[in-house]
Amino acid sequence: MERFQKEKYIAQLSIDCVIFGYKNKELKVLISKLSYGEGLWSLPGGYILKTESIDEAASRILKERTGLNNIYLEQFRAFGGKDRIIGSEYREMVRSGLKSFDPDRFDDEAIDWVTDRFVCLGYYALVDLNKVNPKMGEFEEFLKWEGVEELPHMTHDHNSIVAAAHKALRQNLDEQLIGFNLLPETFTMKEVKELYEAVYDKEFPMNNFQKKILGLQVLERLGKKYTGAQNRAPYLYRFKK
Amino acid sequence: MERFQKEKYIAQLSIDCVIFGYKNKELKVLISKLSYGEGLWSLPGGYILKTESIDEAASRILKERTGLNNIYLEQFRAFGGKDRIIGSEYREMVRSGLKSFDPDRFDDEAIDWVTDRFVCLGYYALVDLNKVNPKMGEFEEFLKWEGVEELPHMTHDHNSIVAAAHKALRQNLDEQLIGFNLLPETFTMKEVKELYEAVYDKEFPMNNFQKKILGLQVLERLGKKYTGAQNRAPYLYRFKK
Repeated sequence: MERFQKEKYIAQLSIDCVIFGYKNKELKVLISKLSYGEGLWSLPGGYILKTESIDEAASRILKERTGLNNIYLEQFRAFGGKDRIIGSEYREMVRSGLKSFDPDRFDDEAIDWVTDRFVCLGYYALVDLNKVNPKMGEFEEFLKWEGVEELPHMTHDHNSIVAAAHKALRQNLDEQLIGFNLLPETFTMKEVKELYEAVYDKEFPMNNFQKKILGLQVLERLGKKYTGAQNRAPYLYRFKK
Repeated sequence: MERFQKEKYIAQLSIDCVIFGYKNKELKVLISKLSYGEGLWSLPGGYILKTESIDEAASRILKERTGLNNIYLEQFRAFGGKDRIIGSEYREMVRSGLKSFDPDRFDDEAIDWVTDRFVCLGYYALVDLNKVNPKMGEFEEFLKWEGVEELPHMTHDHNSIVAAAHKALRQNLDEQLIGFNLLPETFTMKEVKELYEAVYDKEFPMNNFQKKILGLQVLERLGKKYTGAQNRAPYLYRFKK
């Protein structure tokens, strides 16, 4: 296997991605099960090439992991505790995992590089979960979507990173109308309301909510959605591009 | 002079500080005149020791530059354009400046390190300008407070960093009641209003403003401020700790 080319990347600086999706009235995050040991979960992430900007790196990593271009993506903060990795049990697990992996790919110097202290730049992404085709990273067994309130304990400070991303998402949802990135192309007003309720974890009365959202004048009303059910068919909407 | 010990620091990662102060009804930023050449201005900044967290590094740098402990400090975003320094005229100016500086302090390897591409973590700080005793960095001629709207062209993307910090300050001023960090220990309501007007660059009618600020219940009213002038003496306030 090809040697890991650490010299191509900026050392001690990584990107971790909180990829938000929305399904079954729940805000979800894409997390990966690491192959180093039992119960090791982590956020998808990667390194920054010396020849790309940090935003380009984040877009590239997200494309590699989701197959999607033009994802809505926002850098929200850097995480730089001095104890990130250094000295932790996890570090030894990674070191022995890498040693047993493939000596042609990871020599001792590369292992030192990968297990050094890293400052992480946190990005969150909003995706239409139905369009994503999650792809595993090198040391991952599988990926899965998990409810933001039901995440397992993750390595490093990844649970704190998700909490900070969720906070940033709440602050930006209203202001920047980014929530529609989580929905399919067309949706009913009830679906928008349920999305907001999932993100903010509180209920919004339908009348006020619909008035507020329509007042923003960013939605285009399409035909009615006939489901064959007895109740009144709701209108479908689409976000004006 | 002592050799610059680059091995103590994380490479390619720096901290730049937007230090906000407030004087003469104007929001000001502390900027430094660099000694490398004519008209070179920059934000105060520094590197991150491998043994300290990024927040500790920012606090240390701010203490070194202002003499103050316990400054209000907020990380607001990372700046990582691929063209930060690399290939710019400025880089050559810095290289030749460092070469002529002191070969015992900066050898060729150290000069390469300092002039490599850096990703910068932006922090903004709010200080009582009267308490600050600005201290020059190694390659600075002098520091000065300049109005946020009257800044000279600065090196790299430092003008954009200030603009982003100003935006973050506006977003946080109300929510987190951080504005009082810019004022002296005691102040009149008029002074608070003028501060808000300077930060948001718009006027607030006094009656509504006073009602809103007092409604937050974070201020303690002290005695009246007698100035000897003919007009009514205003109350002095203090932020409840």
